[in-house]
Formats: sequence, C-alpha cells, structure tokens
Amino acid sequence: MGKLYVVGIGPGGLNDMTLKAKKAIEESEIIVGYTKYISMIEELILGKEVFQTGMKQEVDRCKKALELSQNKVVSIISTGDAGIYGMAGLILEMKKDEIVEVIPGVTSSIAAAACLGSPLMHDNCLISLSDLMTPYNLIKKRVLLAAEGDFVISFYNPRSKGRPNYLRECIDIIREYREDTTPVGIVKNAMRQGEEVSITTLQNFDETKVDMMSMVIIGNSNTFIKGNMMITPRGYKL
Amino acid sequence: MGKLYVVGIGPGGLNDMTLKAKKAIEESEIIVGYTKYISMIEELILGKEVFQTGMKQEVDRCKKALELSQNKVVSIISTGDAGIYGMAGLILEMKKDEIVEVIPGVTSSIAAAACLGSPLMHDNCLISLSDLMTPYNLIKKRVLLAAEGDFVISFYNPRSKGRPNYLRECIDIIREYREDTTPVGIVKNAMRQGEEVSITTLQNFDETKVDMMSMVIIGNSNTFIKGNMMITPRGYKL
Repeated sequence: MGKLYVVGIGPGGLNDMTLKAKKAIEESEIIVGYTKYISMIEELILGKEVFQTGMKQEVDRCKKALELSQNKVVSIISTGDAGIYGMAGLILEMKKDEIVEVIPGVTSSIAAAACLGSPLMHDNCLISLSDLMTPYNLIKKRVLLAAEGDFVISFYNPRSKGRPNYLRECIDIIREYREDTTPVGIVKNAMRQGEEVSITTLQNFDETKVDMMSMVIIGNSNTFIKGNMMITPRGYKL
Repeated sequence: MGKLYVVGIGPGGLNDMTLKAKKAIEESEIIVGYTKYISMIEELILGKEVFQTGMKQEVDRCKKALELSQNKVVSIISTGDAGIYGMAGLILEMKKDEIVEVIPGVTSSIAAAACLGSPLMHDNCLISLSDLMTPYNLIKKRVLLAAEGDFVISFYNPRSKGRPNYLRECIDIIREYREDTTPVGIVKNAMRQGEEVSITTLQNFDETKVDMMSMVIIGNSNTFIKGNMMITPRGYKL
C-alpha cells in the first residue's frame, strides 16, 4: 500500500522546511516535482527515483504522482506551501482512493516578510497577478477592494514577460487609496540563492525590478520604514 | 555579544516547526514566551532558562527579550508565524541596537487549511476579529470588502467571551455576497493536541462551536466539499 505526501518545502533552503516535510521526503521512494524545485532539495533526495516535469504540466505531474502512490510512498513537492497556489488543490480534486496527506510549509509571502521585517503584522491578503486561470478583471477588482480595505497586500507571480504591465496597473489602483509614502517591499528569491531585498514607496516603485521569482508586499496606512526594515504595527501602545 | 531570534514555532507540534526554528531554539540560552506556548516546546528546552509571561503582557515580554539578548542568545517564540499577529512587529518596533533575526513559521490558517484539504488555493485574506487594537468598524469593513471580492477568508481570533457575537455578525455580512451552500471549515487546535476538524456551510454555520483556539475559513464562490475535504480549485482544466 502506497501513500502520497503533498509537501510544501518552504522558500527553498533545506533549513526552511518543517521537520515533518523533511521526514516525508526522506521516507518517500519517489519524488515528483517541477525541475527547478527538485534541484533545490537535491541533497536530500540523492539516490531516490525522481519524476520531474516542466512548467505548465501540472495536471500530468499530479496524475503521475497519484498513480505512483498506489503502491509506493511518493512526495510531490511545491515551494512555499502546497495549499497556496501549489499542488494540493489539484491533487485533492483528482484523488480517488489514494491515501494523501498535505504537509504545510512556509508560503513565500511569509518568507519574504521575514526578510523585510514585519510587514504582515495586521490583516493582509494574498493576490496572484497571473491571469492564466483568473480573468484579469477579477484580479483588478480584488486589488481595488483590498486597497480600499487597507489590507497589507502580497502579490504572488507579480510580473512575467507575457504580462509586463499588470503590476504597474495594480500599483496605480492602490495609489488611488494610499499615500505616496506607503512602504513597498520587494524580495527576489526570498531565503534562497540570489536573495535580493529592497524597500521603496508607492511613489518610487519601479516595476521593472520585479520578476516571477519576486514577492511584492504593499504596506497598509500604518506601515512604516525603520532603518532597513518595513514594519506594520499590530497596534500595541509603547 | 548576544542575539535575539524571533521564532514562529508553527501550529505547535515539534515536527511542524522548520529546521531553522529548531536550531535557533537549541542554540538559545534563554527562551521567552507566553506560558501556553512554552509548554508546547517543553521537550526541546529542558534545562534552559525560561522567561514566561501571561496573556496581554506582550510589551513586557518583548522588552525583557531585547534586554536579555544584549549578552545572551535568546529566542522569543510565537505559535504560527511570528510575523502574522505574532511578536515580530513589537520586537522590531522596540529594537535599538540589538541583533534580531525573524525566523518564519507555518501560520495557523495554513496549518488549518492542510487539515481541511486545500481551501486556500486561490486569492485569500487573513482577518483578525479581535478588537483589542483594531476598531470593530474597520474589521467589519474589511470583512465586507473581502466578501465582495470573493476572497477566501481566514478568521484569526474568531471568538472570545468578551465578544461572543462578532463572528455571527461577520458571517452574516459574508452571506450578503455568497451562497448559502458556501463551504466553511472550522479547525480547533490545528495539528496539536485536541485537534477537531469540521466542515459546514454558511447556512448551517454554528458560531457557538468556535473559540479562540479555532481557525474559521470561508470558501470563495468556487470552493466545494468532496468527501471530508474542503477544496478551492486553482482553475486547472481536468
């Protein structure tokens, strides 16, 4: 009898996954994942059978993982948390009688926040700017409502070659509701090789510095910059 | 020279913290935290000096941690992630020249989601229903805008004795925008002793089953129930 672990490995470094995630991967006979993510955990899976697929082959990857798990212990990996824009949803949608366990991980807005200081200390929302499976009008509507509600906003998949202008357009929507001086954090490759952290403001934000490996976090009306940190106060009286 | 680690220990079980969090705690000479959370990691801190405080003594706790870190290695712990309604914000606000590192963890909406299936697979927001430091009118405004934007919604601190009716009122706001059949997940003590998982709908939701140790997750317009799982589809064509 096999089993499928749906594992969020966190931002990428082996030390940023949970002990449970590490154990699941160690216990697994087969590891399934997107090539780039497999390479992040190479050290941990030496000698194991690996089934890698490229981008946009998510359905095939999940089908294969479920199939293999019928008589082997298998881990299918996502970076961050598998339940946030990861593989958990697809696996559970497709699952029949296979045994599946979802193992949570540190999602990239949380990893990026730790690099920036503490921008997520108050009510916040996660919005993906990818329109592959979500109409852009709905994305923009969510950005507008999040801006109006003074939520801290984390943008996943903020910018790609196919949609170079969405991020700019969404920032402009937010500027209708927030001050020019509102802090914005950009973290590229949070907590993994090539990490770059920068803090700017809505007014000075330059979207050309952002790519698919980046996380963009927009502060709320109380967020401030202190030294090299971006801080959203929870509201404690000091 | 000392150092302060601000550690998110995840939902509570020792296996649900990251390896980096475990190492930071092991390396620390002194552990600071709220009594209840200290007890969750007892096994890991045997023989260490511990500074515990009760609820609502956050400012004192952080002051003490910063003070101690001037010449000792100290960890101040939060459950979940320290940067989401945890101790990171306060520490960074109060920090002067102490060396501080924030170590991210699995926040409770992510832990609860893994218990429920995959409710957070699409754009989602986190809202705390505690009005200790946030006016209730702002909380309700955010709930309304999140409902209008069809965000999946995670309620932190959903219900306490001092405000038994807020959760009901917020659910009623959401019902203006979503179908009666929208799935709602309730997870009490996610991934720790006393875990209780249940899935219901907006129509059948009973707020009296919810306490401060619970996480409530409201699905979006596409969220569905399959067996004992709550799934929000990302949108892949099957």
